[in-house]
Amino acid sequence: MKEVLKDLDKAFENRIRLGIMSALVVNDYIDYTSLKELLDVTDGNLASHLKSLEKCGYVSYEKAFVDRKPNTNYSATEKGKEAFIKHIKAIEQLLQ
Amino acid sequence: MKEVLKDLDKAFENRIRLGIMSALVVNDYIDYTSLKELLDVTDGNLASHLKSLEKCGYVSYEKAFVDRKPNTNYSATEKGKEAFIKHIKAIEQLLQ
Repeated sequence: MKEVLKDLDKAFENRIRLGIMSALVVNDYIDYTSLKELLDVTDGNLASHLKSLEKCGYVSYEKAFVDRKPNTNYSATEKGKEAFIKHIKAIEQLLQ
Repeated sequence: MKEVLKDLDKAFENRIRLGIMSALVVNDYIDYTSLKELLDVTDGNLASHLKSLEKCGYVSYEKAFVDRKPNTNYSATEKGKEAFIKHIKAIEQLLQ
């Protein structure tokens, strides 16, 4: 069990970050506003969790304009997808 | 997704606490020393996570003596088992 626990990634312990990554692994990208609605979180909360995932190199973003309004698209990096899959597999193993 | 996120229990976000509960739902009880070895954590670390699970009413303990040495047996309460199953189901739903 200690080996499995080591595969659990601290970056995904928080439930908001778990939600962000779950959404980003099944979608190529999600814009900020949709992500906020999907997770039902405040701006400050979402921004801070996105920033911490960016710092880990798990999430990247691209600024875009929709009807002249700025919006930002977020996606999971390859590194982020791999780390998330490893984390989820560890949870599954833990429960077997 | 926001509904599912609400079912994630903050008490189980930490990976040590996730490990403790995983071990206690599949065993009637585990003594402190075995739990410590199983999870490969320090005394201080294990004690503080056990205390926080006790405070939630998720874990209970019973003092015992083995060969005149004190040992403590930990088990998951019914409330703890229910909360943990709800948490795990939420993680599974999040990934569907």
